[in-house]
Amino acid sequence: MSTTPRTAISPTRDENYAEWYQQVIRAADLAENSPVRGCMVIKPWGYALWENIQRVLDDMFKATGHQNAYFPLFIPLSFLEKEAAHVEGFAKECAVVTHHRLQQDAEGKLVPVGELEEPLVVRPTSETIIGDAFARWVQSYRDLPLLINQWANVVRWEMRTRMFLRTAEFLWQEGHTAHATREEALEETMRMLEVYATFAEQWMAMPVIKGEKTAGERFPGAERTFCIEAMMQDRKALQAGTSHFLGQNFSKASEIRFLDQNGVHQYAWTTSWGTSTRLIGALIMTHSDDDGLVLPPRLAPTQVVILPIHRSEQDRSRVLEYCDRVANELRAMRYADRPVRVHVDNRDERGGEKVWSWIKKGVPVRIEIGPRDLEKDALFVGRRDRGPRDKESIPRAEFVANIANVLQSIQDALLERARRFREQHTHLIDDKDAFYEFFTAPPAPENAPTPIHGGFALTHFSGEVELEQRIKDDLGVTVRCIPLEKSEPGTCPFTGKPSPQRVVWAKAY
Amino acid sequence: MSTTPRTAISPTRDENYAEWYQQVIRAADLAENSPVRGCMVIKPWGYALWENIQRVLDDMFKATGHQNAYFPLFIPLSFLEKEAAHVEGFAKECAVVTHHRLQQDAEGKLVPVGELEEPLVVRPTSETIIGDAFARWVQSYRDLPLLINQWANVVRWEMRTRMFLRTAEFLWQEGHTAHATREEALEETMRMLEVYATFAEQWMAMPVIKGEKTAGERFPGAERTFCIEAMMQDRKALQAGTSHFLGQNFSKASEIRFLDQNGVHQYAWTTSWGTSTRLIGALIMTHSDDDGLVLPPRLAPTQVVILPIHRSEQDRSRVLEYCDRVANELRAMRYADRPVRVHVDNRDERGGEKVWSWIKKGVPVRIEIGPRDLEKDALFVGRRDRGPRDKESIPRAEFVANIANVLQSIQDALLERARRFREQHTHLIDDKDAFYEFFTAPPAPENAPTPIHGGFALTHFSGEVELEQRIKDDLGVTVRCIPLEKSEPGTCPFTGKPSPQRVVWAKAY
Repeated sequence: MSTTPRTAISPTRDENYAEWYQQVIRAADLAENSPVRGCMVIKPWGYALWENIQRVLDDMFKATGHQNAYFPLFIPLSFLEKEAAHVEGFAKECAVVTHHRLQQDAEGKLVPVGELEEPLVVRPTSETIIGDAFARWVQSYRDLPLLINQWANVVRWEMRTRMFLRTAEFLWQEGHTAHATREEALEETMRMLEVYATFAEQWMAMPVIKGEKTAGERFPGAERTFCIEAMMQDRKALQAGTSHFLGQNFSKASEIRFLDQNGVHQYAWTTSWGTSTRLIGALIMTHSDDDGLVLPPRLAPTQVVILPIHRSEQDRSRVLEYCDRVANELRAMRYADRPVRVHVDNRDERGGEKVWSWIKKGVPVRIEIGPRDLEKDALFVGRRDRGPRDKESIPRAEFVANIANVLQSIQDALLERARRFREQHTHLIDDKDAFYEFFTAPPAPENAPTPIHGGFALTHFSGEVELEQRIKDDLGVTVRCIPLEKSEPGTCPFTGKPSPQRVVWAKAY
Repeated sequence: MSTTPRTAISPTRDENYAEWYQQVIRAADLAENSPVRGCMVIKPWGYALWENIQRVLDDMFKATGHQNAYFPLFIPLSFLEKEAAHVEGFAKECAVVTHHRLQQDAEGKLVPVGELEEPLVVRPTSETIIGDAFARWVQSYRDLPLLINQWANVVRWEMRTRMFLRTAEFLWQEGHTAHATREEALEETMRMLEVYATFAEQWMAMPVIKGEKTAGERFPGAERTFCIEAMMQDRKALQAGTSHFLGQNFSKASEIRFLDQNGVHQYAWTTSWGTSTRLIGALIMTHSDDDGLVLPPRLAPTQVVILPIHRSEQDRSRVLEYCDRVANELRAMRYADRPVRVHVDNRDERGGEKVWSWIKKGVPVRIEIGPRDLEKDALFVGRRDRGPRDKESIPRAEFVANIANVLQSIQDALLERARRFREQHTHLIDDKDAFYEFFTAPPAPENAPTPIHGGFALTHFSGEVELEQRIKDDLGVTVRCIPLEKSEPGTCPFTGKPSPQRVVWAKAY
């Protein structure tokens, strides 16, 4: 007799990936839509995840010599206009402040009054307003390099939004630096790309490809844009961080000039780089399964949850006492340079519901403790990287002493699984028809969502902007990046022309 | 022969207090005005101070059971309108977003297009948008208490701004909680007031009076507002944190209802409480002197600065090596549960200028090390709570071993000095004429700023709103708070009526 295993999330990934994503967020209580169009509310479990991401990245930024600062939320229109490509890139999706007061009209309705002389844009990014400050701060080569980061909210009035992935307001960090030479600025650009890649792999357990964007995908105003690209479980690519070499475009627009060692005025070379709450979307889609969220231990707000199981009132107090003792023993241990984060869930709810609520929240280790475990001085342990019913009894002392290894082995398993998934769905394709077939969805029943298909195609490309556009129009597929790790040269299957290296093609978020 | 001592800040506090404040900020490189009206740029030294404030407060919030979350920057007009007093309080100073796109007009000028159906206000505070979420999150008494905090930027379109004290955009935290009973909500209100008072006294070394606001100074929509009030060096009061008991006003406006244990629907009782970057203004005006910023060691971004002094190239390397060794020894020590924060300033600049730059930045301990100190294995130490020329030579090992005590003794000295200053300028006044005289400025030369005068008057008050308004109109003086620590009852000197206790009168920021 076989039964269909029940999953905690419905629909499953295979049934409807986009809807599965929303349901994972809901079941884990990470965030919800707000009544403000395109803006979300980040709930405590989601925000705790963001705080952990912030803390680690912030330490990495400081270790590479950066300081935090804070710049105005509002950008005068005249500032945006300073860099032509920049304004072109952001003008279509700006929240514009035009008034500074509200007043009741004759019918008692609030209306904006007090029109501003110059409208202000809510920052979509801060190159121009920070450039203005840099122009004051940089006078001599002694003031360089200037290495600044800002943690902030930004607004881009997106028409189609999806929680964490694309929201009208989002939280991010934006690094902005100025340097005396092109070489130093390029070095900085690559250093921060490396920081992002290290964070993605070591902390998020998310393998990424480091590469450069083609012209069409460059940041508006940048000379070169580098990125890290990850594969989600629907085999689409997600850009998880970008680092821009801005050349002298913004220093010329903002007049960031310095006297060099020979007393000659020079324009500075600038960079900018950013990651955002989108990382949480990437994390969800890299690891989660049909039972809900799966969190890498290094970023999990709670790494170990302890669930007391008791039926009688008399069992209750000794089970709770034992649970607290285990919790404190675990909290005295360290993992990834921090005390282990442990939560004892002593809510009065049914045991099964409690266990499932923590599975759906993605906590790496669950420990169930009942009277019999207590007598054996052993813990009944489940790991989120394994099936929900795959649990084992482990002597308390042994488990506590070993907790850092357990957490790291889950972290490693998630990275390994994600890496294997990406490899399975990455193909060398050297033929135009095979390429088109790879990215064409198999037929699906009427009204059903498009089945998961495709992946990463490593294909040669002779680099024409029009060709890339045609493939995008045909298939919705773009060059995600030109990998820094170069392949052999070859022939472009679309044009027959020579190609210096393979590039990564994929559908993308 | 006597010489007038030179001060690093000009004008001095006595010469022109308001200008002295701006110059202290400038000399310490804390912040600067931005090209956006009323918005400032918080520079790295100022932002590092804010990060330290954030870290300590955040730990205190979490220790009292609160979780962080994040809510939208924008508030629909219809939300603001839900609470009548609230909209009345904030309508006059709102940044209003009316469009979501920019387009070039015929002359190539950018103009806002894409008008929003309903304008959005940039949050001046978040009671209404958070109330909307709470209404979804709270269903049963089991969901209470709900204890949430948000770190965010807010905008209030102030017409007269001053850095840190009153800016159009500022950074803050806002706590929002919901409870099942009036008593629990009041307890929470008082608990958070206590957290703020503890932070002010123990971390900022700033003595405060805890009290309640009169009706005229209440938060728009609150039933009761509590605050901490500190005295600045111009003897004016500064409100450094507020905690509001909102009763059921906002829960009724936002429909935050729950089923109680008897299955009956009840409105929740809510609170909100906040502190902001204004704390940095308070810190500056509590401790700084005519040589610039003075930082309490517990919050100083750098607690100890080491200044290598060398003339010859041959001295240079052994002095630097010794300095690095001392720095690492100090970094291995702990103060206030953290490693001591040490910076070695090895910039190639004149020694005197370097020393003065750190005095002006307010670093608690300066260590000068030259070849002769190195030979004696001793450090030449200056403390920011003493005169700039008051330095002493201390054996290295002794100084390092004692560093936590040194820092704490500076912290204590600053609190003690601020407390003494406040006591000197706080008077029991029982007579109307004496009261009016106390708050009337002595004559000043033409075009000179008003001399520093007044202070805190502890005076009985029979509580009439009109009386308070008249005194405000006459003298610019208001009731800063009704202290929680009650005095004896008495007679109001303005009306001759009975008064339950003395209240604190002062001019205020």
